[in-house]
Amino acid sequence: MLQSSNSFARLLAELQKLPGVGEKTALRLAFHLLKYPENTAALAESLGEVLSRVKFCSVCFGITEEDPCRLCSSDRDETSLCVVEEPQDLLAVERTRAFRGRYHVLQGALSPLNGVTPDRLRIAELMRRLEEGTVREVVIATNFSVEGETTALYLARQIKPLGIRVTRLAHGIPLGSDLEYVDAATVQRALEGRSEL
Amino acid sequence: MLQSSNSFARLLAELQKLPGVGEKTALRLAFHLLKYPENTAALAESLGEVLSRVKFCSVCFGITEEDPCRLCSSDRDETSLCVVEEPQDLLAVERTRAFRGRYHVLQGALSPLNGVTPDRLRIAELMRRLEEGTVREVVIATNFSVEGETTALYLARQIKPLGIRVTRLAHGIPLGSDLEYVDAATVQRALEGRSEL
Repeated sequence: MLQSSNSFARLLAELQKLPGVGEKTALRLAFHLLKYPENTAALAESLGEVLSRVKFCSVCFGITEEDPCRLCSSDRDETSLCVVEEPQDLLAVERTRAFRGRYHVLQGALSPLNGVTPDRLRIAELMRRLEEGTVREVVIATNFSVEGETTALYLARQIKPLGIRVTRLAHGIPLGSDLEYVDAATVQRALEGRSEL
Repeated sequence: MLQSSNSFARLLAELQKLPGVGEKTALRLAFHLLKYPENTAALAESLGEVLSRVKFCSVCFGITEEDPCRLCSSDRDETSLCVVEEPQDLLAVERTRAFRGRYHVLQGALSPLNGVTPDRLRIAELMRRLEEGTVREVVIATNFSVEGETTALYLARQIKPLGIRVTRLAHGIPLGSDLEYVDAATVQRALEGRSEL
């Protein structure tokens, strides 16, 4: 039985390293994988393929198979640069189809207590891109967490001396929200940022 | 960016075949896997290892690396046989440490509408084990779903003519339950199965 299966125990341990996967989910996934060996083989192969093919773009540090990535080698607006924390944030902005400029992925957010200082992020690379002089506006789209806000403030202070406009995504009430369920801090920010109708 | 990464798209598709993994979870998992390449390599290797090493026990059809499995080659009580649907159900019974007999995994439950007829399950193998004459009691521990109940009834009808005792796990109120929140059918079964104090 299972007690004797080292490879099964190892698979359980590996699965539990995934985000949101605990002991029970790992068991469920593992039994599913055993039940569908063709899918499991395909998954294993796919993991290897991604590992060998996908890399970071040397310009924006997003993930890509070609270097530079399609976005960096496209004819998109070079005067506008959107700074995000992670590749998935880039996707979130890109999904809106509302931004036609370039991107820069920091690969994290400042968190000195956890040892994430500016030199651990792609900030030096960002500054080098900005010093080329093409970018006129940097849109900071880091998360609205303590780390994300800290990073935004830090970047603003670094970039403004270069004479480049620095903007931040707006705070406000999410679409479709019931005002009574929105937290007070968000309503306050929405009030401060109110616009003419 | 990602639009151009076929291997990433393929990984997303493979991840979405896992139970409980939709588009968003697949993205989250995939980005996590990209962020921790050592873990990803270990996971891929572990999947391959499980595929090549873990097989079904030729006696009980549970999963194992050795054949017959440890449970089948142990000195456990051979007169009592617990029949379950899937290997994970075997684990659930085994966790209780209350059963000291042997197991038989059906690898499914009867569901004629979905094409799962008796010949698709390990029922013939079960009958062959029973015909050896050692087993005195079969404890049917299939799930309490329509398919599981159907399977239990079917097995009971097949096994009783052999003069073997057939039992089923008890229905009743789960431990720690508030009676008012337990569904009526369960309370009814608990009433029917009431015991002397």
